[in-house]
Amino acid sequence: MKRINIGLLGLGNIGSGTYKVLELNRKHIEATTGLDLRIAKILELDTTRERGFAVGPEKFTQDPEAIFADPDIDIVIELLGGVEPATSHMLAALKAGKSVVTANKAALAENYEALTEAAKASGAQLRFEASVGGGIPLVGAITELLCANEFTEILGILNGTTNYILTKMAEEGRAYEEVLKEAQALGFAEADPTADVEGHDVANKLSILMSIVFGTRVRPEGIPTRGISQITKKDIEEAEAEGCVIKLLASAFKTADGVECFVQPTYLNKTHPLADVRNEFNALFIKGNAVDDLMLYGKGAGPFPTASAVLGDAIAIAKTLP
Amino acid sequence: MKRINIGLLGLGNIGSGTYKVLELNRKHIEATTGLDLRIAKILELDTTRERGFAVGPEKFTQDPEAIFADPDIDIVIELLGGVEPATSHMLAALKAGKSVVTANKAALAENYEALTEAAKASGAQLRFEASVGGGIPLVGAITELLCANEFTEILGILNGTTNYILTKMAEEGRAYEEVLKEAQALGFAEADPTADVEGHDVANKLSILMSIVFGTRVRPEGIPTRGISQITKKDIEEAEAEGCVIKLLASAFKTADGVECFVQPTYLNKTHPLADVRNEFNALFIKGNAVDDLMLYGKGAGPFPTASAVLGDAIAIAKTLP
Repeated sequence: MKRINIGLLGLGNIGSGTYKVLELNRKHIEATTGLDLRIAKILELDTTRERGFAVGPEKFTQDPEAIFADPDIDIVIELLGGVEPATSHMLAALKAGKSVVTANKAALAENYEALTEAAKASGAQLRFEASVGGGIPLVGAITELLCANEFTEILGILNGTTNYILTKMAEEGRAYEEVLKEAQALGFAEADPTADVEGHDVANKLSILMSIVFGTRVRPEGIPTRGISQITKKDIEEAEAEGCVIKLLASAFKTADGVECFVQPTYLNKTHPLADVRNEFNALFIKGNAVDDLMLYGKGAGPFPTASAVLGDAIAIAKTLP
Repeated sequence: MKRINIGLLGLGNIGSGTYKVLELNRKHIEATTGLDLRIAKILELDTTRERGFAVGPEKFTQDPEAIFADPDIDIVIELLGGVEPATSHMLAALKAGKSVVTANKAALAENYEALTEAAKASGAQLRFEASVGGGIPLVGAITELLCANEFTEILGILNGTTNYILTKMAEEGRAYEEVLKEAQALGFAEADPTADVEGHDVANKLSILMSIVFGTRVRPEGIPTRGISQITKKDIEEAEAEGCVIKLLASAFKTADGVECFVQPTYLNKTHPLADVRNEFNALFIKGNAVDDLMLYGKGAGPFPTASAVLGDAIAIAKTLP
């Protein structure tokens, strides 16, 4: 059994989900991979919150350097969210030679070059499956399993909040404001839903996808972006009359001049595989020059699906460690 | 650039597709992976057939040992199809320390233990992404990217011929025999369609899936299997009246006593993600205890989609070679 010590940055919802899934599936992971993954240190201010599991108080630290400078720590998992201090912490960890796993789309979309170059410079690994599509293993599928393809087109439903709202508007004939309030009550939408409903969250994810699919770096601010807050019942009915649904799509296409991309509400014919992606589900539809049309569908958010991606990345790194 | 020499067993439709995709995407693969993959030797009787590309006659051999004993060959790709001589060749290659990539579901389903044990014994790798689901990267997704999950359920549409026939019957109200003849004319069904329409092809694939998803070995003959040849227009209409479609499903579930599995035509509610998998497309729907519901959808057959999977496996192995 190979013992791998993890330094975890952040024990909020996603961090706690990761901790729980690791304990839940510990025996399975040990049996199938031969890896004994241990969360050895945790950077977290709130050491007393009730999380549904016990963490020894000696694991908590308020000093990120205590993690990055510890020679026993093999992998750093960053689940703080937000651009800073997450980016600075990841850069420090990579510089110290620690491989990093992150679920942080905002930090990656903002600082993709700095982070990937820091990894290259130190020879450490940077993996970020959970940053786009939550539990859907699309980063690994594109960069590893499908790497014999050149891709010509990507279309994604990459935000569960807006897809939930559009689904309810279409299937129940309800108005945007009413469904948004319901989504907030159910916890599918934030109290301030701007980042979701105006498409900024999707633009962050599309920025990351364009880097890995096309090798093209476009900052989120450079992606023409329109959200769903202006979509009316009438828009939905007009789409329906043409045999279509409206989905908030992240789109990118190879053109003669490079790559075109945008985030906007889009008519999709009901026969398109993405048209059937309902409620909070996410999906990525890609076209490769060998594999042809491919779709990956699943839960794009939530502590357990996100933990699936985070731990998959940690295990992939752990397998390569001596 | 790391040079990797490949010994290819079989230059039929799939072998030729693999050769073509490698040449088509050579620059992309070199740029993104740093690998220079070369098909150095080819086991194939037919050296003169017009394949749409030129192969130096010195590459052909009729002697498999000339490949397995060649110290310059790094990876063997087996695309002969059928149980024998493919199994014997793969065992000989693994014994000689060559890692093996195969698309051969029949050989794997029949000889899974012998092949995986031969790989273990010699320390060589055995990868078989293309054997289930063609271009859909489901083997790698399950065994690598999603390996932090325990799975409780798999449902698959894993045969394009039968899904094409069922789709046309449902959408165009036509009879089984008529659509089968059309599928044969279009090349979607074999002259002898038994293995497809009676579910044996799907049973082979489900046998392989159960090994990787549940670690449970069930031989294809041990899977209760019923095909679609008895499905009538009336059956389809009755399903429709209940808001369902009929799909030929490969199903496996964890139960208190172990794992239950079968291949049979199954009612699927139209809201189920698999209900929208039309024509020759394949899809796998799985439920993990962290990731929850996940579906992978794409082309389950054809030279180019299969080549995508075969070359993805070859690249994964090549990255680990010194």
